[in-house]
Amino acid sequence: MSLEEVKEKVVEIRREIHKHPELSYKEFKTSKLIADVLTSLGIEVETGVGLPTAVVGRLKGKKVGKTVALRADMDALPVKEETSLPFKSEVEGVMHACGHDTHVAMLLGAAMILSREDIQGEVRFLFQPAEEDGGMGGAKPMIEAGAIDGVDYVFGIHISGSYPAGVFATRKGPFMALPDSFKIEIHGRGGHGSAPQETVDPIFVAVQIVNQLYGVYRRVDPVQPFVISVTSIHSGTADNVIPDNAVMEGTIRTLDETTRRRALDYLRKVVDHVCEAHGATCEVHMMEDPYPVTINDPGTTEEVMKILSKISTVIETPPIMGAEDFSRFLERSKGTYFFLGTRNEKKGCVYPNHSSKFCVDEDVLMLGVRAHAELAKHFTRT
Amino acid sequence: MSLEEVKEKVVEIRREIHKHPELSYKEFKTSKLIADVLTSLGIEVETGVGLPTAVVGRLKGKKVGKTVALRADMDALPVKEETSLPFKSEVEGVMHACGHDTHVAMLLGAAMILSREDIQGEVRFLFQPAEEDGGMGGAKPMIEAGAIDGVDYVFGIHISGSYPAGVFATRKGPFMALPDSFKIEIHGRGGHGSAPQETVDPIFVAVQIVNQLYGVYRRVDPVQPFVISVTSIHSGTADNVIPDNAVMEGTIRTLDETTRRRALDYLRKVVDHVCEAHGATCEVHMMEDPYPVTINDPGTTEEVMKILSKISTVIETPPIMGAEDFSRFLERSKGTYFFLGTRNEKKGCVYPNHSSKFCVDEDVLMLGVRAHAELAKHFTRT
Amino acid sequence: MSLEEVKEKVVEIRREIHKHPELSYKEFKTSKLIADVLTSLGIEVETGVGLPTAVVGRLKGKKVGKTVALRADMDALPVKEETSLPFKSEVEGVMHACGHDTHVAMLLGAAMILSREDIQGEVRFLFQPAEEDGGMGGAKPMIEAGAIDGVDYVFGIHISGSYPAGVFATRKGPFMALPDSFKIEIHGRGGHGSAPQETVDPIFVAVQIVNQLYGVYRRVDPVQPFVISVTSIHSGTADNVIPDNAVMEGTIRTLDETTRRRALDYLRKVVDHVCEAHGATCEVHMMEDPYPVTINDPGTTEEVMKILSKISTVIETPPIMGAEDFSRFLERSKGTYFFLGTRNEKKGCVYPNHSSKFCVDEDVLMLGVRAHAELAKHFTRT
Amino acid sequence: MSLEEVKEKVVEIRREIHKHPELSYKEFKTSKLIADVLTSLGIEVETGVGLPTAVVGRLKGKKVGKTVALRADMDALPVKEETSLPFKSEVEGVMHACGHDTHVAMLLGAAMILSREDIQGEVRFLFQPAEEDGGMGGAKPMIEAGAIDGVDYVFGIHISGSYPAGVFATRKGPFMALPDSFKIEIHGRGGHGSAPQETVDPIFVAVQIVNQLYGVYRRVDPVQPFVISVTSIHSGTADNVIPDNAVMEGTIRTLDETTRRRALDYLRKVVDHVCEAHGATCEVHMMEDPYPVTINDPGTTEEVMKILSKISTVIETPPIMGAEDFSRFLERSKGTYFFLGTRNEKKGCVYPNHSSKFCVDEDVLMLGVRAHAELAKHFTRT
Repeated sequence: MSLEEVKEKVVEIRREIHKHPELSYKEFKTSKLIADVLTSLGIEVETGVGLPTAVVGRLKGKKVGKTVALRADMDALPVKEETSLPFKSEVEGVMHACGHDTHVAMLLGAAMILSREDIQGEVRFLFQPAEEDGGMGGAKPMIEAGAIDGVDYVFGIHISGSYPAGVFATRKGPFMALPDSFKIEIHGRGGHGSAPQETVDPIFVAVQIVNQLYGVYRRVDPVQPFVISVTSIHSGTADNVIPDNAVMEGTIRTLDETTRRRALDYLRKVVDHVCEAHGATCEVHMMEDPYPVTINDPGTTEEVMKILSKISTVIETPPIMGAEDFSRFLERSKGTYFFLGTRNEKKGCVYPNHSSKFCVDEDVLMLGVRAHAELAKHFTRT
Repeated sequence: MSLEEVKEKVVEIRREIHKHPELSYKEFKTSKLIADVLTSLGIEVETGVGLPTAVVGRLKGKKVGKTVALRADMDALPVKEETSLPFKSEVEGVMHACGHDTHVAMLLGAAMILSREDIQGEVRFLFQPAEEDGGMGGAKPMIEAGAIDGVDYVFGIHISGSYPAGVFATRKGPFMALPDSFKIEIHGRGGHGSAPQETVDPIFVAVQIVNQLYGVYRRVDPVQPFVISVTSIHSGTADNVIPDNAVMEGTIRTLDETTRRRALDYLRKVVDHVCEAHGATCEVHMMEDPYPVTINDPGTTEEVMKILSKISTVIETPPIMGAEDFSRFLERSKGTYFFLGTRNEKKGCVYPNHSSKFCVDEDVLMLGVRAHAELAKHFTRT
Repeated sequence: MSLEEVKEKVVEIRREIHKHPELSYKEFKTSKLIADVLTSLGIEVETGVGLPTAVVGRLKGKKVGKTVALRADMDALPVKEETSLPFKSEVEGVMHACGHDTHVAMLLGAAMILSREDIQGEVRFLFQPAEEDGGMGGAKPMIEAGAIDGVDYVFGIHISGSYPAGVFATRKGPFMALPDSFKIEIHGRGGHGSAPQETVDPIFVAVQIVNQLYGVYRRVDPVQPFVISVTSIHSGTADNVIPDNAVMEGTIRTLDETTRRRALDYLRKVVDHVCEAHGATCEVHMMEDPYPVTINDPGTTEEVMKILSKISTVIETPPIMGAEDFSRFLERSKGTYFFLGTRNEKKGCVYPNHSSKFCVDEDVLMLGVRAHAELAKHFTRT
Repeated sequence: MSLEEVKEKVVEIRREIHKHPELSYKEFKTSKLIADVLTSLGIEVETGVGLPTAVVGRLKGKKVGKTVALRADMDALPVKEETSLPFKSEVEGVMHACGHDTHVAMLLGAAMILSREDIQGEVRFLFQPAEEDGGMGGAKPMIEAGAIDGVDYVFGIHISGSYPAGVFATRKGPFMALPDSFKIEIHGRGGHGSAPQETVDPIFVAVQIVNQLYGVYRRVDPVQPFVISVTSIHSGTADNVIPDNAVMEGTIRTLDETTRRRALDYLRKVVDHVCEAHGATCEVHMMEDPYPVTINDPGTTEEVMKILSKISTVIETPPIMGAEDFSRFLERSKGTYFFLGTRNEKKGCVYPNHSSKFCVDEDVLMLGVRAHAELAKHFTRT
């Protein structure tokens, strides 16, 4: 297969997946498509690795070498597509608005190239379900099922509407945030709106909590990236009834454990003390085992940046407060996560990821294919 | 009919109505029962006065005299009765938890007594639907339909779980509050929870509004009764998405126009300035034409207290922050609104009005009957 | 002495005292003047009663009767007089801006009248120092020294710029507030303004305390008069140094013990919990033994209002959130405190008490003289 | 002079200056000492360069080369020294608590070495007064007087108790913050503490401003270092008087102009809208022409780090929110500002700069001397 043929195939696969997007944990068609392509390339395929839709491909060389894992996530988003593409989503209310369709296609493109090469060691292809699921995510069960056992390096690409088409962007060290999700339940005592003195008003308590929570910015190191957002608040049903309860949800984003600890401690202290001061009781629920900080190994990433710079422009970006469960692979292996820009004003590709109008400049796909292939070839030989 | 017979009738009627409670504007059976009793007493009956279920009875004396109106409200509440009374509500989820069943029964009892007396002037019996409806209420359409045209005095009784059984409680001057209902809509600009700087966070704006709203207590005369309660707040759907909008509702209770104006001005100013400071837009919606302050004419009420004190104990209470559309009658006529206590620990009548366990000591009903009758006789002769 | 002569004397005495105002505890000239006048009237005089400048006069009748005390306070204010009266203060920075000069003059005028009458029982003249002193006040030591032992009734008048000249104003029951003064000291840990995370910022803590304190209005009965004001806050010295400490002061005004207890409890709870939540330590200091609520005995006051209404117009006012240590006398004896209006636009007497331009319509003084005398005569005979 | 002799001299000079510390703009003895040493080394000396105490030395080589400026700041702090050093400050209340004594000594040491070398181009020695002065600072007038005209590179060292003895610490790009000082004056309308409704309470307004100000953290990019601190608040004099005015001061620290603009805009908007909402008027005063961001030229700093690493350990640190008017030199010339650690637990040198117990491990001084000399030699030759 010539590079031109690979390109055609990659675009075709991408469009096929785009047309049939599947939500987290339900990537059945996508999974089958992947397995079929890998098999046709003579690559050893394992399905149901930790999750029913997870696929692992193993391409083993004859010579001794390192094991390099390349990862693509597969799931779509519950977004109604608002483009006029010929290969627009045919599933109502589901869309590959985050570009995972391109991830799968680019990694299969790399498999096409690498399967014809004389590989050292092993290239492992990780097709991961459920990255968008803010809870457990797909990386964890795959790891527990042994998907990266023996892996020396792991790499992942994310297509991004935030960078110009064709530009690679990454960062040495902490790159993407750890997302702590919290839920605060406040239990007061309701009553008539005209007699607040006979109640414990959960809305007043909630307001004081939110108000003090944002004081946490003064408790953490100002040079450490940090976000806390209370993103939902719900209480009450009528204009003259003080309700019993209030519920709030939100997210804390950190890149270092000290800041995280300080923020979580502050959250609990503020909630506890505000509630107690006003006679309410409170519960703070934290989502368990959040995605860790995405930390690119500095030495590996230095090398990655050199290799990518032979393919296209590479920039080092500030950290990003978004989160990514590729971080779980990076906890267990050296590696690098990086973005591939796809913003192209001329082609109208100007919408951010997750937008219902998100569109990809397909001309950048081969840059991702080549990046995967070059990194695999380079690092298996180290 | 002896007083003993009247008492039996009153209890019977009360239980009948209690068993078949009807919500605001839908008091059809109750209305028919009232009309039938009044007719049987030889009292002139007009139905559909302003509202389909409103009933007005007219008992005219041969001698010249004043016209005295006596009012009873008729509607039940959307409350599921949790008593074990033999005449418990037979309508699922509807209950006379505010005691309007007793109001109707007591007023019909008074009609029985008065219809046998040699009346001067006119006694008018006002059976009003929809008092519990916090919006327009039933008094307004009745007034507009002429129900109190020519009335010199108007009186109303409310049974109350807050006072000991048999005690009358009232107050000269402003007695119950004007309830201003407000709804605040905040329009921000949503976005990802990890990037608040790219949003206009409506929850932050809402919190600042509530926080400053309660500063209004420092803007009003501290000897004037005043309440403001934000009773509902709703915004957001997920832990990582800053929402576009927030909505809040609440109530302001005042007894004087100066305090009311200051509070409403403050509300608008705070909402406008907080929203503008943070780049949001806001709308404040006020419920139109709220129930006015319930103002008992001092001279009339002085006399009423003397007359009631011949029947039972009378106390003068502080103002009450609840609201009552009897106030609309008092805007157009001299008169007095008063409570009749029904709390009786021995009989287990210890629950407040609106409780699903609210219970009435039926022994007090004849006090209400006599109060109505005595007031009618006295004031028609003035 | 004719009433005309008394009036001349009263005005003369008032002007003399006005010219030589003396601050709390230092009313030496005033005290001497009082003692001299009383002695000249043949009234038994005791000086130094609990305080060096306190004077008690005793006028005993031959017939049996009640003992009625009449009280005038004597001290001036640290205010620089800004009037152009011929008898303007000759003491720089001290002024009878609260009208205690008229109180002394009116009570001496009453002594002139009463000393010629055939008194029953005893009329006791209480000339009290240090009413303006917000701490202990002069009433307490006088009481402890026996000044009102055996007293059956006590009356006091305050001249007031808030009511029209000649109008008496009072109220049955709780009339003036109990003032609780508080001081909150916050101990944080200072540091550089650019590194708040290494400090415990006492200003942030103070701000959160004030913010939550005003939530107390929702914890107290809205029909009970109530004020809390944080009136001073001090912290910090430079624009780039976070200070160690902050200090706040303020006042709480209440008319009933339930509201007071709720407010004081809330204050402590909020201070404690806010400080603890943010790692600061705090101290709340309350001024000991504040002036009690001024409670006019309802029955006595009913009678007082009848008597005063023979002299001039009498109105019943809402409660007043100011404080007065006449309340200590009322804790131990039946009695009434009342105001005598002196606002007179025609004479330019339009400034409130404590203003540097406060001026008195001297034509009202004889109304106060007569009020004292009539109340003494009436109540000694009861 | 051997290096050993230089070291002796450097320590001797440092102790001499330490014993006689001089405050900003008054570094007269220090200035004379510097001029004398430079003159004795045959270096061309100019005094009074922009400020009376500023000294510039020029060492010109015979060969063509670049001009490299080395800068030392000279002023002490208004701190009472609490050490037991034999050369402890002899000036009551003034101390070299920030180590500028070592800066002068190290730069003179470098002059001793460089004056014996065969220099290319020019080495310029900048002895700057008044770095501690948060206002104008000494760099500005020196620049205006031509002190760095023709300079190609500028370098500066700061001794630091935050890093281990002997370690160099610096950062490419934005390194230290721009400090915006603000002062907010709030004009309300005072009155009695018991009648807040008749006042415009400046403390309530101040509290709401501070409370909302800290919301600014949500308006700026969370990966950009940012601090805002309200460091002083003053209002009120008594527990029962609501004051007329309140004053607050504070600092904003930023490293990029976008964040700075957003923060300053937010500050003004919040102040304006809170004041207007509550009927107060406000003024925001910003200190003019603050120290700019200290930006180390990345290329130059890369080279500097290589050179320093031959002398001792070099680390790249996160940005620092403190400020430094060396930034003014870096606005006009390439260059690098860096720290030299002096924390040494064994020697008890554990106190931070500005502490009254700040102490320097004198063994590190020669590292600073050599750093100056090596950088001068290297960069004059580029």
